[in-house]
Amino acid sequence: MVKAKEKLNQLGKSLVEQAKKGENPNMDIPIRALSNVTYDQKKRMIMMGNKSSKRYLFNVAHIKKFLQTTEIAANVQKLLVAGKHVSLRQAFYMMRRTIPGTQIDVVEEQEESNKAVEDLELVRGFSREELNINANKNGSAAGKIIIKDKGDIIDWSKLGSGGWAIPSNTEDIEFKKVDAKFVIYMEKAAIWERLHEDRVWDKLNCIIISSQGQATRGIRRLLRRLNDEYKLPIYILVDNDPWGYYIYSVLKYGSIALANISEKLAIPSARLIGLTCEDVNKYGLKKYLIKFQKVDESRLNQIKNYEWFQSKDWQRELKEMKDQKGKVELDALVAKGVTFISDVYLPEKLKSKAFLD
Amino acid sequence: MVKAKEKLNQLGKSLVEQAKKGENPNMDIPIRALSNVTYDQKKRMIMMGNKSSKRYLFNVAHIKKFLQTTEIAANVQKLLVAGKHVSLRQAFYMMRRTIPGTQIDVVEEQEESNKAVEDLELVRGFSREELNINANKNGSAAGKIIIKDKGDIIDWSKLGSGGWAIPSNTEDIEFKKVDAKFVIYMEKAAIWERLHEDRVWDKLNCIIISSQGQATRGIRRLLRRLNDEYKLPIYILVDNDPWGYYIYSVLKYGSIALANISEKLAIPSARLIGLTCEDVNKYGLKKYLIKFQKVDESRLNQIKNYEWFQSKDWQRELKEMKDQKGKVELDALVAKGVTFISDVYLPEKLKSKAFLD
Repeated sequence: MVKAKEKLNQLGKSLVEQAKKGENPNMDIPIRALSNVTYDQKKRMIMMGNKSSKRYLFNVAHIKKFLQTTEIAANVQKLLVAGKHVSLRQAFYMMRRTIPGTQIDVVEEQEESNKAVEDLELVRGFSREELNINANKNGSAAGKIIIKDKGDIIDWSKLGSGGWAIPSNTEDIEFKKVDAKFVIYMEKAAIWERLHEDRVWDKLNCIIISSQGQATRGIRRLLRRLNDEYKLPIYILVDNDPWGYYIYSVLKYGSIALANISEKLAIPSARLIGLTCEDVNKYGLKKYLIKFQKVDESRLNQIKNYEWFQSKDWQRELKEMKDQKGKVELDALVAKGVTFISDVYLPEKLKSKAFLD
Repeated sequence: MVKAKEKLNQLGKSLVEQAKKGENPNMDIPIRALSNVTYDQKKRMIMMGNKSSKRYLFNVAHIKKFLQTTEIAANVQKLLVAGKHVSLRQAFYMMRRTIPGTQIDVVEEQEESNKAVEDLELVRGFSREELNINANKNGSAAGKIIIKDKGDIIDWSKLGSGGWAIPSNTEDIEFKKVDAKFVIYMEKAAIWERLHEDRVWDKLNCIIISSQGQATRGIRRLLRRLNDEYKLPIYILVDNDPWGYYIYSVLKYGSIALANISEKLAIPSARLIGLTCEDVNKYGLKKYLIKFQKVDESRLNQIKNYEWFQSKDWQRELKEMKDQKGKVELDALVAKGVTFISDVYLPEKLKSKAFLD
C-alpha cells in the first residue's frame, strides 16, 4: 500500500510543480473508448492502447472533472492512511461535498465519482483495489488450500456447507499451504453447492469457487493469483449458451471496459471445462435444450465476431451452438442423476482433457 | 430428516389406501391465494388460512397436477434417502421425463415443478428445506459465535475479511458457543464489509450478517434460530426507503407468498435499527436525500396500507418519509466519516434503544 500512497504523492507534487512553474496544471488521461482498445494476439489479452488526452485545470470544459479527479485522489489518500476501504457507492458519498462559497457540489451523480475513480486508475496505473475502493462482494470458496487473511488462518476444507465468503478485495490474502492441483470456477452458486455437497474438491484434489453470474473483481484476482503464484490451472464451468461463454471470455481475455487492467485480471491460460455442444451430444442432453430467444441469437452472433473467438475450435463450437438453436444449462446434468456432474461428468472431462481453449 | 421421509410415506400410503377402497385418490391442498392469507395480530405474523380444495387423480382437470405432485414426492424421497440436496432449478430437471408410451413430459416449464414443490409443502406441512430442495445461496456472516456444520467447527470471529459464506440451507447447523449478545442483519454487502473492517462485531459483541437485497431463506432460518434458541435480539439495518422497510417487514412478519411457513421464518421480535427519518434529521443526512421516483412513492403508499404497519409509530414514520419526498441510503453515513456508522451511529442507536418495532 506504500506504493499507492507514493504514486498519489507524485501526482500531487507534479501538479504543484506545474503551478509553481506558471504552467497550467494538467494530467495525461488515457482514452477509455473502444477506439483505444485492441486484442493483443501474443499476450492473448484485451489491452488498452496508448492514446491519451490532456486535462487542464484552467479550462472551463475541463475544470470540473479536474477537480473531481483530485478530490478522489485526496479522499483515497485518507483511506490509505487510515487503512480503510469503501465501496464505489460510499466513495460517491465521500465526494459529495459542496464547494465552499458556492451552491455547487463536487459530484451530483455516482456516475461522476465512478468516472473520477476510473480516471485516477488510468492516470497513475492503479488498480481500484490499490486505491482501497472495493467492488462488489459475492461468492463462495472451498477446497484444499489454507490461507492467511487479516491474521486469521483459514482452511477452506473445514468450513461446513457454506464455505469461505470471498471478500470484494483479495489482494492481501496469503496462500499458506496449497494442496489443490487446479481450480474450478462456476457461474452458479447452485452448482457450487452441488459439487460441495459431493465433496468434489476432496475427491479431485482441487478448489471450487463460484459467484452468481459474472465473477467479481475479488474472485478474478483470486483466480489470477492462484494461477500466477501456484501455476494452478483454472477451469471454467458455465452453461452451454452465449452468456456462459462470455463469462469465460472475460475471465480469460479481460473485458473492454476494464482493458486498462487486463494484465492484472485476465487469465490467458484459463480453459472451458464445459458445458460444450459436444457434451450436450455425448451426454444426451438435447432433450433439455431451451430454445434461443432473439436476444440469445444476437449475443451469439456478437461473440462469434469477437477477435478472441476466432480460433478454429471456437468458431466450430459457436457454429454448432448456432445450429443447435438453443442452450443447455449445467443444472440439466441432474436429470442424469443428482451426483452425475460430480461422479461422471467432471472426472471424465478432466481425464480426457476435453477443454476448449 | 426421518420425519420428512415418514410424512412422504404417509402420503403414499393414503393414496394407495384410497385406491384399494375404490375411492378416487385425492389430496387436500390448502389454497395459496391472497383470499386465504391473514395477518394474525396476536402472533404478529402473516398466516395462511385453512381454506383448501381437493385434487383428484381421476379428473381430467386435475390429473396432470396430481401426477406432478406425486412425481416430486417420489424424487424428494430419493433425495432424502441419498442425503442429497438440489436447487429448485435442478428439481425441475429431475422431473423432466417423458411419460412412457406418450410424447408428454411430466413438466415443461420450471413454473410447473415449482408449483408441485409448493403443493407438496402445503399438503403435508413441510418446509422446502425438509424436502432437501434448496433456495438461493447468498450472504456472509462474522461475529462471536462458534458453529458446527458438516462435522467442521467454524469460528465466525476467525475468518479473515470474507467471513463465512451462508449456505442455502441452515437447518443442520449446530450452535456450539454463542458469546454474541445480538445480531445485526443488513441488506447490503458493502455495509457488511464496512462494519467487518471496523470489527464492529468484536467491539459491540455481536454477529453481523448480510445478503444483497432480500434475505435468502437460509439467512432467515439462521436469524430465526439464533432468536429462538439463544434469545438473541435481531436488529435490521436497511436504507431509509420503502424497499428497505419492506425487507424489514418480511423478516419480521413473513410474506404473503410464504404465509404457510411464517411460523418457521418470521421473527416477530425483530426491530429496525435504522435508517429512520429521525436518524436522517439527527445526523444531518438531508443533504444526501435522493428524490423519490413514482415507483418509490407508490411502494410507500402500499406499505403504509399493510395491516402490519398500522401501529402509531410506524404510521408516523411512513408519514415522515412521505413528507421527506426522498430516500437516504446507509452509505451516506460515510460522508460523516468512513467509520462513522461503526463508531458513532450504531453505538448511539444501541445505547438509546431507538428502535422501530
